[in-house]
Amino acid sequence: MHYTKKDIEELERVKRLNIINSISGIKPANLIGSVDNKGNANVAIFSSVVHLGSSPALLGFVIRPTGEVPRNTYDNIMATDKYTINHVTDGFTKKAHYTSAKFDKDVSEFEKCGLTPEYLEGFKAPFVKESKIKIGLTFKEGIPIKLNGTMLMIGEIEHLIVPDEALAKNGYINLSTASTAGISGLNSYYQLNKIDDYPYARPHELPEFN
Amino acid sequence: MHYTKKDIEELERVKRLNIINSISGIKPANLIGSVDNKGNANVAIFSSVVHLGSSPALLGFVIRPTGEVPRNTYDNIMATDKYTINHVTDGFTKKAHYTSAKFDKDVSEFEKCGLTPEYLEGFKAPFVKESKIKIGLTFKEGIPIKLNGTMLMIGEIEHLIVPDEALAKNGYINLSTASTAGISGLNSYYQLNKIDDYPYARPHELPEFN
Repeated sequence: MHYTKKDIEELERVKRLNIINSISGIKPANLIGSVDNKGNANVAIFSSVVHLGSSPALLGFVIRPTGEVPRNTYDNIMATDKYTINHVTDGFTKKAHYTSAKFDKDVSEFEKCGLTPEYLEGFKAPFVKESKIKIGLTFKEGIPIKLNGTMLMIGEIEHLIVPDEALAKNGYINLSTASTAGISGLNSYYQLNKIDDYPYARPHELPEFN
Repeated sequence: MHYTKKDIEELERVKRLNIINSISGIKPANLIGSVDNKGNANVAIFSSVVHLGSSPALLGFVIRPTGEVPRNTYDNIMATDKYTINHVTDGFTKKAHYTSAKFDKDVSEFEKCGLTPEYLEGFKAPFVKESKIKIGLTFKEGIPIKLNGTMLMIGEIEHLIVPDEALAKNGYINLSTASTAGISGLNSYYQLNKIDDYPYARPHELPEFN
């Protein structure tokens, strides 16, 4: 199947949305936890978390500030500066998916979706107890992407929780051991099976390719 | 294991790099193909491709313009405005990985890594023949991320090639059927096994969670 730009524009809206949302490849499945100034906890699934730098340790994610669902997340981060990123495991993809429903602002997605908020002393935002890999962040900067009204939200890592058995001595994290899941598009979930690690690639140390 | 911001800063550099590069979760494994004005084809692996919008169909990726390896990719895109994004399959992760070696500018990574450039009539940049899902893009905008000197490169989709058997009628792309691979950190590759699709989530149509 070969679609040109024109074919894509002429596709039925939902089909176009599904294709273009899938086409970048596998995406990380993360729950973002936040809290408003009254202490109402919020959790929502995001597939746009991206590594931006290691020193300082920066992660980004893309949000639509005027969107209905992630709006609570955006407003809470603006109000409190703190949020958490929690890996969805292959055991609770369904619960995680349903956090995307447009619940009223005073409804806790944790409760509705059978997930458990968990707090670290001195850190406002809720972690997700069911996750194995959990990250607490401080908001640093929002970069507007004017082309389509979204915002790249950048935060610095304050806390990082990783299970011992998933963390190798050299710092590699085995996502299969951590049961971390992936997302394609808006609705499809994947389990991850590790193929291999390869060494740092040097031009004069190429293997034989066949 | 619980690391605070201070613990992370005090980690040995390579270990910190490995952890922080893994911690966002699974990343898509894509080869970006580009060409300079003399026709020299370049291909390099990127794990930062991200969906930005469906109408227009926009994809982004993060590059360090002053970095040594992706520099060819950046310079070529600035020179020609065209590039391709090609899914790495679980069958050629090793070849794809070695495109990250710092080859000299006049060396073709395609040739060195056993990959085959493929062209569409009227589109300058090379696709990767061994990929099953291939995207041709026109560069639209580079957004500098001043916090760490990287750039979010945004392009609009001009061509989209997807195998029939991986594309459902509703536009869902089955990444297991397409053999699409994922990356964790800089060196670890994963095969994707589809768990399930879930419907669009509505607050009044929640399933029973147990």
